[in-house]
Amino acid sequence: MEQWDGNEGTSAFHMPEWMIQFADQKQEFNKRPTKIGRRSLSRSISQSSTDSYSSAASYTDSSDDETSPRDKQQKNSKGSSDFCVKNIKQAEFGRREIEIAEQEMPALMALRKRAQGEKPLAGAKIVGCTHITAQTAVLMETLGALGAQCRWAACNIYSTLNEVAAALAESGFPVFAWKGESEDDFWWCIDRCVNVEGWQPNMILDDGGDLTHWIYKKYPNMFKKIKGIVEESVTGVHRLYQLSKAGKLCVPAMNVNDSVTKQKFDNLYCCRESILDGLKRTTDMMFGGKQVVVCGYGEVGKGCCAALKAMGSIVYVTEIDPICALQACMDGFRLVKLNEVIRQVDIVITCTGNKNVVTREHLDRMKNSCIVCNMGHSNTEIDVASLRTPELTWERVRSQVDHVIWPDGKRIVLLAEGRLLNLSCSTVPTFVLSITATTQALALIELYNAPEGRYKQDVYLLPKKMDEYVASLHLPTFDAHLTELTDEQAKYLGLNKNGPFKPNYYRKAIAA
Amino acid sequence: MEQWDGNEGTSAFHMPEWMIQFADQKQEFNKRPTKIGRRSLSRSISQSSTDSYSSAASYTDSSDDETSPRDKQQKNSKGSSDFCVKNIKQAEFGRREIEIAEQEMPALMALRKRAQGEKPLAGAKIVGCTHITAQTAVLMETLGALGAQCRWAACNIYSTLNEVAAALAESGFPVFAWKGESEDDFWWCIDRCVNVEGWQPNMILDDGGDLTHWIYKKYPNMFKKIKGIVEESVTGVHRLYQLSKAGKLCVPAMNVNDSVTKQKFDNLYCCRESILDGLKRTTDMMFGGKQVVVCGYGEVGKGCCAALKAMGSIVYVTEIDPICALQACMDGFRLVKLNEVIRQVDIVITCTGNKNVVTREHLDRMKNSCIVCNMGHSNTEIDVASLRTPELTWERVRSQVDHVIWPDGKRIVLLAEGRLLNLSCSTVPTFVLSITATTQALALIELYNAPEGRYKQDVYLLPKKMDEYVASLHLPTFDAHLTELTDEQAKYLGLNKNGPFKPNYYRKAIAA
Amino acid sequence: MEQWDGNEGTSAFHMPEWMIQFADQKQEFNKRPTKIGRRSLSRSISQSSTDSYSSAASYTDSSDDETSPRDKQQKNSKGSSDFCVKNIKQAEFGRREIEIAEQEMPALMALRKRAQGEKPLAGAKIVGCTHITAQTAVLMETLGALGAQCRWAACNIYSTLNEVAAALAESGFPVFAWKGESEDDFWWCIDRCVNVEGWQPNMILDDGGDLTHWIYKKYPNMFKKIKGIVEESVTGVHRLYQLSKAGKLCVPAMNVNDSVTKQKFDNLYCCRESILDGLKRTTDMMFGGKQVVVCGYGEVGKGCCAALKAMGSIVYVTEIDPICALQACMDGFRLVKLNEVIRQVDIVITCTGNKNVVTREHLDRMKNSCIVCNMGHSNTEIDVASLRTPELTWERVRSQVDHVIWPDGKRIVLLAEGRLLNLSCSTVPTFVLSITATTQALALIELYNAPEGRYKQDVYLLPKKMDEYVASLHLPTFDAHLTELTDEQAKYLGLNKNGPFKPNYYRKAIAA
Amino acid sequence: MEQWDGNEGTSAFHMPEWMIQFADQKQEFNKRPTKIGRRSLSRSISQSSTDSYSSAASYTDSSDDETSPRDKQQKNSKGSSDFCVKNIKQAEFGRREIEIAEQEMPALMALRKRAQGEKPLAGAKIVGCTHITAQTAVLMETLGALGAQCRWAACNIYSTLNEVAAALAESGFPVFAWKGESEDDFWWCIDRCVNVEGWQPNMILDDGGDLTHWIYKKYPNMFKKIKGIVEESVTGVHRLYQLSKAGKLCVPAMNVNDSVTKQKFDNLYCCRESILDGLKRTTDMMFGGKQVVVCGYGEVGKGCCAALKAMGSIVYVTEIDPICALQACMDGFRLVKLNEVIRQVDIVITCTGNKNVVTREHLDRMKNSCIVCNMGHSNTEIDVASLRTPELTWERVRSQVDHVIWPDGKRIVLLAEGRLLNLSCSTVPTFVLSITATTQALALIELYNAPEGRYKQDVYLLPKKMDEYVASLHLPTFDAHLTELTDEQAKYLGLNKNGPFKPNYYRKAIAA
Repeated sequence: MEQWDGNEGTSAFHMPEWMIQFADQKQEFNKRPTKIGRRSLSRSISQSSTDSYSSAASYTDSSDDETSPRDKQQKNSKGSSDFCVKNIKQAEFGRREIEIAEQEMPALMALRKRAQGEKPLAGAKIVGCTHITAQTAVLMETLGALGAQCRWAACNIYSTLNEVAAALAESGFPVFAWKGESEDDFWWCIDRCVNVEGWQPNMILDDGGDLTHWIYKKYPNMFKKIKGIVEESVTGVHRLYQLSKAGKLCVPAMNVNDSVTKQKFDNLYCCRESILDGLKRTTDMMFGGKQVVVCGYGEVGKGCCAALKAMGSIVYVTEIDPICALQACMDGFRLVKLNEVIRQVDIVITCTGNKNVVTREHLDRMKNSCIVCNMGHSNTEIDVASLRTPELTWERVRSQVDHVIWPDGKRIVLLAEGRLLNLSCSTVPTFVLSITATTQALALIELYNAPEGRYKQDVYLLPKKMDEYVASLHLPTFDAHLTELTDEQAKYLGLNKNGPFKPNYYRKAIAA
Repeated sequence: MEQWDGNEGTSAFHMPEWMIQFADQKQEFNKRPTKIGRRSLSRSISQSSTDSYSSAASYTDSSDDETSPRDKQQKNSKGSSDFCVKNIKQAEFGRREIEIAEQEMPALMALRKRAQGEKPLAGAKIVGCTHITAQTAVLMETLGALGAQCRWAACNIYSTLNEVAAALAESGFPVFAWKGESEDDFWWCIDRCVNVEGWQPNMILDDGGDLTHWIYKKYPNMFKKIKGIVEESVTGVHRLYQLSKAGKLCVPAMNVNDSVTKQKFDNLYCCRESILDGLKRTTDMMFGGKQVVVCGYGEVGKGCCAALKAMGSIVYVTEIDPICALQACMDGFRLVKLNEVIRQVDIVITCTGNKNVVTREHLDRMKNSCIVCNMGHSNTEIDVASLRTPELTWERVRSQVDHVIWPDGKRIVLLAEGRLLNLSCSTVPTFVLSITATTQALALIELYNAPEGRYKQDVYLLPKKMDEYVASLHLPTFDAHLTELTDEQAKYLGLNKNGPFKPNYYRKAIAA
Repeated sequence: MEQWDGNEGTSAFHMPEWMIQFADQKQEFNKRPTKIGRRSLSRSISQSSTDSYSSAASYTDSSDDETSPRDKQQKNSKGSSDFCVKNIKQAEFGRREIEIAEQEMPALMALRKRAQGEKPLAGAKIVGCTHITAQTAVLMETLGALGAQCRWAACNIYSTLNEVAAALAESGFPVFAWKGESEDDFWWCIDRCVNVEGWQPNMILDDGGDLTHWIYKKYPNMFKKIKGIVEESVTGVHRLYQLSKAGKLCVPAMNVNDSVTKQKFDNLYCCRESILDGLKRTTDMMFGGKQVVVCGYGEVGKGCCAALKAMGSIVYVTEIDPICALQACMDGFRLVKLNEVIRQVDIVITCTGNKNVVTREHLDRMKNSCIVCNMGHSNTEIDVASLRTPELTWERVRSQVDHVIWPDGKRIVLLAEGRLLNLSCSTVPTFVLSITATTQALALIELYNAPEGRYKQDVYLLPKKMDEYVASLHLPTFDAHLTELTDEQAKYLGLNKNGPFKPNYYRKAIAA
Repeated sequence: MEQWDGNEGTSAFHMPEWMIQFADQKQEFNKRPTKIGRRSLSRSISQSSTDSYSSAASYTDSSDDETSPRDKQQKNSKGSSDFCVKNIKQAEFGRREIEIAEQEMPALMALRKRAQGEKPLAGAKIVGCTHITAQTAVLMETLGALGAQCRWAACNIYSTLNEVAAALAESGFPVFAWKGESEDDFWWCIDRCVNVEGWQPNMILDDGGDLTHWIYKKYPNMFKKIKGIVEESVTGVHRLYQLSKAGKLCVPAMNVNDSVTKQKFDNLYCCRESILDGLKRTTDMMFGGKQVVVCGYGEVGKGCCAALKAMGSIVYVTEIDPICALQACMDGFRLVKLNEVIRQVDIVITCTGNKNVVTREHLDRMKNSCIVCNMGHSNTEIDVASLRTPELTWERVRSQVDHVIWPDGKRIVLLAEGRLLNLSCSTVPTFVLSITATTQALALIELYNAPEGRYKQDVYLLPKKMDEYVASLHLPTFDAHLTELTDEQAKYLGLNKNGPFKPNYYRKAIAA
C-alpha cells in the first residue's frame, strides 16, 4: 500500500496520479487475503515499504516456536497480560537494546529530564501504530515519563523487533505486535490497542495511516475525544490531506514528515552518507575516478553528489527544474541530459521522485558493468519491469545485487531491484531516528496542550519554533554552543530571544 | 539613507527597529542640504550604501571640467537634447563598455532575440532610478528592444559612469545622471524623468525607493496610469511594505530582491568567492592553516565557511538559530560562542544581519594581527564606534585597511572600517548582475502584461515560474542542458511540463 | 608471523626492533606445531595477517567433507593429477569468479593481448606462493599467456578460495592449496611446488618470504638457476634486506611493495574510502558533526582525514614529523597532542606505524561511546593489552565490535580488537588488487628479461618506467587520455617521449 | 638571463636544452650594454624574472631626485658611509616595513632568540646578493644577530625597496643597492660588497648566481677562504650543477631551492591560493560553473585544480606522466587531451614546465572570451609569439590583461602576456617568504659549522633534519602542537627522537 515512501527528490510533493493509484490500491488492499509480502521494516520509523525484507529478516532468529502469539497465554513479571508479543522471556535482551539506543537519543532523554517536574502529557491516552524498534521504545517510554498512557501496535507486519516488544510489555506497556504477523493479525493488533474496556485514546500517533483509517472505519465516534493526530509518513500525510480536502478530517493533524529538521536529515545529510555506504556494501567498488550521473538535484541529489565528488568521482547531474539546475552548475557539476552521458558512466543514481527516469533504452545503451540504483522514490524511477524480458538473463550475485545480462554478454549491475538503495542496502543512523522521534513527541505535546482554537480540523506543519526546539535538543550531541541574542539585539532584529528565528517570509525567499 | 543594504544573514527580515531608524533618517534626510557623502556606488545594481566611495571614485576621472551638466547645452548626434550627462563626447568609450557587458549578460541578449517578433513591452513607458553602469545600460537597451520607452535617473549621486550615461544619451535614451551630483541635482534629475510634457510613465523601476517616494510626494495622480512598481533594494522593499501596511500602496509592487535566484547568487555563491577575494586584496594573507570564526550561518555565512574550509582554514561558527546551528555541525564546523575562540582566531567575519556582534570587549581580547571584517549587513555588526577612543591609535596602512593599535602594541587589522567587505574590497561578477537585471526585466514584463486583477495593491514576490525562467536563461552560459518531462512524467508528478516545478508547500518544508 | 603488515603511516620504514621481533618469532614459529590461528586471509594479495579470520571463514562453506585433500585422488578433465585442491568439482563455480575478476583487471588483460605476438616469459618457470583468490588466478593465467610455466602454493593457511584453486587445477595449473591447511600441509604444499621431477623454477614470486625461506633452507642449489625473486609483502621485503645485509642474498630481488603506484593506492586512495566503509559497517554511525582525532598524517592519515572532513566530521591530527605536521595545518586540520582532545572526541583513529600511540591512560579519559580503531600498522598502535584487566568488562556486540565497559558504566567501542580496520571490516576493491598484480607481472618480466649485469644480488625497487607503465595500463579504466610529448617538447625537457618522466632527483625533493 | 624561474610543474628538472639556452644567453648577456629591461622584482626573494615590472614599479615613488646614488655622499646617523642607497633619509619608513614583516616571520625571530646565548655564525662573513625587501632585511638582521657580518647587493636592478635599503644602511649594514640600477651599477654594487679592504667573505648567499659568477671571474682566490655557497634560484642551482659537472666547483654548495618545505609552499599551497587571486584580480570572473582545463598535474597543477574544484569550477586535466595522470583520475578530474576540450572551456591554465603546451592552433579553436594564463614556467608554455600576427588585434584592457581579437570578433583574454600569473598578478604571502628565508639561514649555519669533510665540492640538498627544523619553526604560527616520541617508541621505530623522521628510502617510494 505505502509504496510511495522514500526520500523525496526534486518535486515529490505534487502527486495527483499517486492519489489515484493510492485509491486503487486501497481497493485492492481490502481484497487481499493477507498482508504477507506487502509490508516490511523500513529503516525509518516513519516509513513502510516492501524494500527491506531481507534486513528485517535478519533481526530476529526464525528458530522461535511456531505458535501464534495470539494463542499463547503470557504474563509479565508484574502479572499483567495486557499485551501480545512473541515471547515475553526475551525482555531482558530487548532491554539492553533499548539502553543502547537511549545513549544515542539524547534529545528524548533530555525531554524526560525536563518533564520531571511538570508532566505535559498527563492525562494523554496515546494510541500508536509505528515500527516497533529500540528507538520507538525510547520514544514510548519518554511519552510515559511525560505522563501519557500508551497502547501500541506495529505499522508493518515484518518490522517488529520481538525482543524490544517483549521488553516494553515487561515494563507494562500494552504492546500488540510481533514479527511476521498475518494480515488478520495486523488488524487484530490495531483493534486491541483501540478497542479497550474503560480506556479511550485521546491522541493518535500514526505511521502510514492504517490506525487512523481503522478508527475512521470502525470507531468514528472515538474522534470526539481525540485531540489530534500526529502522522509520520508521506503516505499517511497524503491520506490526511485527502480527508481534509474532502471535508472529512474531524480533528487537527500534524504533518511531522515535512518538518525542516527531519527533511534535512532524512534527505541531505543522511543520503550524503548512505549513498557511499549502500554502494560499498553491495559492490565493494572504488569511487575514485568513477564517472557517475545523478538524476535529480533536490536535497537527496545534492547529498549524493557532494559525497561522490568528495570521494573523487566525476559527477554529472540531470535536472528538470532550472533553479536546481543552476545550483548544480554553481556547485561544479556538468548539467547534462541522461542520453549524453549514458554510454560513458560507471554508475547511474536516480533521486527524482519521478517515474521511468531510467528507461529500457537507457539501459540498453549503458556500458558493461554499469551500476544502476535508486535513491529517490519507491521503485518507479528505474523501469525495472522493462528488464523482465526473455532475451535478458538475471543473475543474483549477492543479496540485493542482480546482474542483468544482455545477449552480447554485457552486464548491468542492478541494486535492490530498483528499490531504495538506502533503505535496502545501508542503515539509518540512530541520530536521524532520534530527530524523527523527538519531532513526534513534540508534536504530540503541542497538539495535546494547544489552547482551544489554535488548531482546526486541518493538516498542520510543526510550528517553526518547535522545529527549532528539536534542533536545539540535538546540539549537545556535538558539544555545540548556541549564541543568545542580547536584549538590544533581539529588539534590533524584531525577534523574540527564544525564537522562532525565521519568518515564513524568509523561508519562501530562500527555498529552492 | 539606505544604510541597511547588504547581504542578508540569518535573520535579516525582521526589522522593526530599522523601520523606526528609517523613519528617523527620512526626517533627517529632508533637512540635509546636500547628499554628498550620503550615497555612493554600490557594486550591485540593487544596493545603495556609503560603502564603496573609494571604488566609485576611481571609475571616472575627476579631471573633467567643472561646469555643472545642468548648465551645459549638449546635443547628441541626432540632434536631441532630452538628456543631461557629464559629457556626450564620451559616448564612444561608454559604448565599448556596454558591448563588453553584453557579452556577459546572455540572458538579456536572449530576451532581446525572443522579443524580435512580439514586443511584450510595447506601449510601456518606464521611468527608472538605478545605478547607471554598463550592466544597467544593457538592461535599458533590452527594455527598449522589447518595446518600452524609458527615462532614467541615478539612484546614487556617486555611482554613475559618465561614459555609459553619455553612450545611452547618444543612443537616444533620456538619461539624467552624472557622477558627483549634489542633493539638489539628484532630485532635479528624478524630476526631469517624471515631469515631462506629453509623456507619462506607466511603469516604475526603482532601487531604493526614492523615485517612488518623489512621485508619491509630487505627482500622486500619476499613479492612476501606473501599472506597477518593480523594486530592487531591501530598503525600497521595506518602504513598500510600510506603505502597504498603512494602506497607502496604490499600485501592485514586485519585490525582486527576494527572488530565489537572486538571493542564492547575491549571497551563497557570490560570497563564497568574494570573501576570499576581499581578504586577499586587502591583506595578501595566506588562508591555509588560519583559524577563522564566522558569525552567522545563513546563506552568506555558508558561502564564507565553505570557501575558507576549502582553502585550508580551520573554521568556527557562531549562530543563534538552532536549525542553522545544526547545519553548521553537519557541515563540519565547530559551533561555538564567540568568547570561546576570540583569543585564538586569526580572522573574525560577521555575517549575521545583526548589530554589535563583535563588541569592544571581543576586540580587546583578540590576539595581535587578528583581522576583523564584515560580510553581513551594513556597518553595524562590528562595534567600530567603540574603537574610536583616545587610547587606541588608528593607522591607515592601505586603502580600506586600518591597523587599530592598543597601548601594549597589539594591532587589530580592521577592513573597510567594518562596512561590507565584499562591496568595498572585491567586485561583483557581471554574471550576478545579469541575474538581477534579468529578474527586473521579467518583473516589468509580468506586471505590465498581467491581466486585470492578477495583482492587487500589494507587494508580491516574483512568480516562481518567472524565477525559474531567469534561471533557465542563464543555463546556456554553462552549456547546461535541462531535461524535459515526458507527458507521462508530468502527469505522474502533477506538474506542468514548463514548470513551475515546486509548490510553495515544498518551499516551506525545505527552507532553513 | 607477519603481524607487521598493514598500511604504512608516517615512518614505517625504520624498524630495527621489528627485525629483532621478527627473528624471535621466526624461532618460535619453527617450534610451533601448527599454523592454525597464525595465518589467515588478508584481503590484499600483498598482506598476510591474522586480521581477517572471520571474513576468510565466510568465503567457502565449511560443510565440505572432512577428508584431507592430501588423502584424495583427484584428476582434472584432461586426466592430470599434478595438483592438490579441496574439490576439483568446484572448478566451474571458480571459473565464474575468475571471469568476473577479469572484467575488473583490465591491465592484466591488456598485457595478455600485447603478448600474443611475443612471449616475454617464454621459458620462465615460476614458482609462486601467494593468497589464492580470483585475482591471483587472473595473474597466473596472464603469466601463462605470456609464456611462463607456473606452480603455486598458498601463502596463508586460511586464505585459499577452494573453488578458484579447483578452476586453476582444471585449467592445468599445478596448484597445491586449500582453505584450512595445517602447518604441515602448508610446507608440504610449498614443497610440492618446488621439489618436482624434471622441473626446476627459475623465477620466484613470493608474498611473505616463506617460499624463499624454504628454498634457502632445503634446496639452496636451486638458486643457481633462479634469475630473481619478486616479493610483495613488507615482511618478505625485510627478510630480503636482512639477507642482503648479511651478504646471503644470492639472486636479484624486486621489492614491489614500495612501488609508487601501489603505495598511493594501498594507502592514500584506498584508505580514503575504507575508513568510511569500515566505520559504517561496524557501527552504522553518522559522520556529520563528529569530532575525530587521527594519529599520524602520512598517506594513510591523509586519506582518512580527507574522507572524514568531506563527510562533515571535525578532524584533529597528531604528528611527530614537523613536515607532515605543517601539511596537516595547511590542509585545514588542527594539530594537537592526543591528550588535548582525548576527552572530547567521538572517534580515535591510529595511522602511525608506531606502537602504544593510544595508551590505557588515553582510553581511561575517553568519553562514553568513543570509537577506537586502527588503520595503521598491525595491532600495536592501540594498547589493547592494557584493556584486558579485571575491572573492565568486554562485551562483543557484533562481529569485530567490542564494548569495553568501565566500572562507572562508560563504554569504549573497540573495533577489530585494535587490528587493522580496513583489513578486518571493509573490503579491498579489485582495482587496487589489479595494480598490485600488474606490478608483480611486470617485475617478473623485468627480472626475467634483464640483460646480464643490470641487476646484482641486491633488493631493487621497480624501475620508475615500469611503475609508470603500470599506471598507464590502468588509465583506460577511467577513459583517461594521456598527452604525448612532441619531439620538440621532449628535447626541451630532456626527456624520452615514453618516460620515465621524473628523475630520482625530483622524487627526493618532493616527497614528504 | 633568468627567464626559467617559476613554479615547477611535472618535470622541470631535466633541462638539457635550457642549459644550452643558458650558455647562449650568457654570451649575449656579456655583450649587452645595460641590464635595463632584463631584471626586475620577482615576488619571491628567490626568483628573478622580468615578470613583475609593473608591480615593482609601484613600490617606490619615481619622483625622487635623479642624482645617481653613486654620485651622492651619504652618511648614516652613526657616521658610517660604507653603503650606497637611494636616500638614507627614508630609513624610518623602511624600518616600519621591516617591523611589520618581523611580525609575520616568526621562525627567524625564534632563531634570533635561540641564538642569544650561542652565536652559530660568529666569525661568518657573508656576502649576499638577493632581492632587497623587508623580508630580506629580517633575514639579514637575523644573520647579524647570530653573529655574522654581512655585505649585500641586489640580485635584480628593479627589485630593491629603497626605504628598506636605507633602513639597513642606517642600522649599519653595508648595503649597495637601489631601484633602477644600470647594468654597470649592478656589477659595481656587487664588487663593492666583495672587494673591500681588510674584509674577505667566507660565505656566499646568492640568488641567481651572479655574485658567485663575479667572484669566479674576478677574485677566484677568494674561494680559498669561502666555506660554502647557499643558492636560492633554479637558475643559480643549474649554474652550480654545471660547474660541478665541469669539475670547477671549488666549495660546497647548498641547493635550498629544492628543500621539501620550500617546494610544497612555493608550489602546492601557494598556488592553491594564487590561482584564484590572480584570476580574480585580473578578470573579476566568477569561478562557479566555469569549465577549466589545467595542463599538468604536478604540485602546481594539483594546487590549481583543488582550488578551482572547491570554488565550483568543472576541471579537466592534461598530463604526460601516467602516474600523475592516475592521481588526477583518483582526485576526480577527467583526464583529457587539450584538443578534446579546447572548444568548450572557459579558462586554460598551464602548469607544466614545458614549452608550447598551448599552441596557436589551440588558441584558434578556443571559444569567445576564453581566458588563457600560465602558472607553470616562465613564458614558454603558451605560444604567445604565435599571436603576434597581423590578422589579430591586441587590446590592452587593463594592466596585465590583453584581449586578442580574431578577425571574426572572437576575443581571447590573455593574462600577463603568458608570463607567470602568480608572479605578475597576485602577491606572495610573507609566510611563504618566511619559509624561504629560514631555509637560507639554516643552510648558512649548516655549511658554516659543518665539520671538515661533511661536505665536499659538490651541490647538496638541505639535510632532511634541517628541512624538518624549518617546518617546526613555523608550526607555532598555527598554534600547532607536535607530538614527541617516547623512548620506547623511538626505539621501536629505530628513529632518533628529534628526527629526521623519514629516510631517503621512504622518499623514493612515496614521491610521485
